Amino acid sequence: MTGVQQEGDDQSVSLHLLKQKMADFAKERNWDQFHSPRNLLLAMVGEVGELSEIFQWKGEVPKGLPDWKEDEKVHLGEELSDVLLYLVRLSDICGIDLGKAALRKVELNAIKYPASKNYGTNDDSTAEMCG
Amino acid sequence: MTGVQQEGDDQSVSLHLLKQKMADFAKERNWDQFHSPRNLLLAMVGEVGELSEIFQWKGEVPKGLPDWKEDEKVHLGEELSDVLLYLVRLSDICGIDLGKAALRKVELNAIKYPASKNYGTNDDSTAEMCG
Amino acid sequence: MTGVQQEGDDQSVSLHLLKQKMADFAKERNWDQFHSPRNLLLAMVGEVGELSEIFQWKGEVPKGLPDWKEDEKVHLGEELSDVLLYLVRLSDICGIDLGKAALRKVELNAIKYPASKNYGTNDDSTAEMCG
Amino acid sequence: MTGVQQEGDDQSVSLHLLKQKMADFAKERNWDQFHSPRNLLLAMVGEVGELSEIFQWKGEVPKGLPDWKEDEKVHLGEELSDVLLYLVRLSDICGIDLGKAALRKVELNAIKYPASKNYGTNDDSTAEMCG
Repeated sequence: MTGVQQEGDDQSVSLHLLKQKMADFAKERNWDQFHSPRNLLLAMVGEVGELSEIFQWKGEVPKGLPDWKEDEKVHLGEELSDVLLYLVRLSDICGIDLGKAALRKVELNAIKYPASKNYGTNDDSTAEMCG
Repeated sequence: MTGVQQEGDDQSVSLHLLKQKMADFAKERNWDQFHSPRNLLLAMVGEVGELSEIFQWKGEVPKGLPDWKEDEKVHLGEELSDVLLYLVRLSDICGIDLGKAALRKVELNAIKYPASKNYGTNDDSTAEMCG
Repeated sequence: MTGVQQEGDDQSVSLHLLKQKMADFAKERNWDQFHSPRNLLLAMVGEVGELSEIFQWKGEVPKGLPDWKEDEKVHLGEELSDVLLYLVRLSDICGIDLGKAALRKVELNAIKYPASKNYGTNDDSTAEMCG
Repeated sequence: MTGVQQEGDDQSVSLHLLKQKMADFAKERNWDQFHSPRNLLLAMVGEVGELSEIFQWKGEVPKGLPDWKEDEKVHLGEELSDVLLYLVRLSDICGIDLGKAALRKVELNAIKYPASKNYGTNDDSTAEMCG
């Protein structure tokens, strides 16, 4: 069994599956005409803005969002998803295999920031993490 | 076989795999201390900025980026990946199952924008796509 | 006459005037408590998102926006203003004199990109303009 | 004396002056050809990203940035300026009088959020401030 996604299994939601869903979605609605690279990029920036609005007046927020109401978390999941979906679509339209690129980038990051080094302080190399 | 990812198979790069890789990466470098929700959000905004810089002086860009050099495409893949990796990490730190949320959002979008409707023109509903 | 702003005179809208108006606005509403640097930064990112949404499905847009309806231009002016107002407020809260910093940055840019050089093509130095 | 800016007087740095400086700067370098609305918007998003990077790993930051080194503040002033300069240029290229629009927006905000109302808690109206 290779590459077959089972949608009910959360662990198996792949970038390939989301790419296919977004492509089908656009095609069924005659939206391919709008999905140029820069249109999609600006749409993604719009969603990043909506994601930021959720966090904008909250001050620092602890991991796991212990004090957030359930509907706030659902809303957060929607905005995170909107960013992801446009990112996946943008990558597809640009001809970039996002999953492959992401695995490669993790490997590059591992070379740039060796695990053996001591990163305990907020120094310059930390300031560039994943940059 | 359920949920086991085979890294060599591009089609099977899942959000779960990337989440796990990012969690391991941070832990091995003692970076969990920096990975608060708003830190990660701002880091992601930084990467969105780097992604935008790639497109900023190009005017409109056709699908598939036919005129881009190979190294430009590699660079693009890296910046798309940086956005994705921080998005995945932010979701994890917030306790959101990003894959599950994304599948749910696609379904909500399908209800909001029925496939049977005619979206041929750049009208108001189009202007809000995926919003 | 030095530094006195006449509000009816558009040419004289200064960053100092906007800073003062934003400070008064926040104080009168008991909003100083929310105006921390990172809260304001995320609020600004939110407005950048709303600005991007205006342009997201339009493809390339000519200078002067000749085909835009009046209400679209008014909306655009509001979103541009929202970005500006949060930027002015963020600078103030950080203790940065934005007007002074902007004049200095223009001078630094003039040194970095001498006017005498030929920038006719989309080369590397162009790609970094104002960076 | 109307609208004449005295550059040595920080209080008088106007949006009009910055607009003029940016227009001259672009013209002298033959950069008008690159300054389309969406190019400038994406360039501004790039600068917002650089601004966010300054704040990304810092956790919450107190007003006035008491613990920041002088060179960090200078860098911050430069990134705030880059966002401002592209915002001013974008407005100009779109034919929007940014100073006029900003004064109008402050007035609209004052109507939307009356000063007499009690905004002491982080409620819904607060969550939309300046939105």
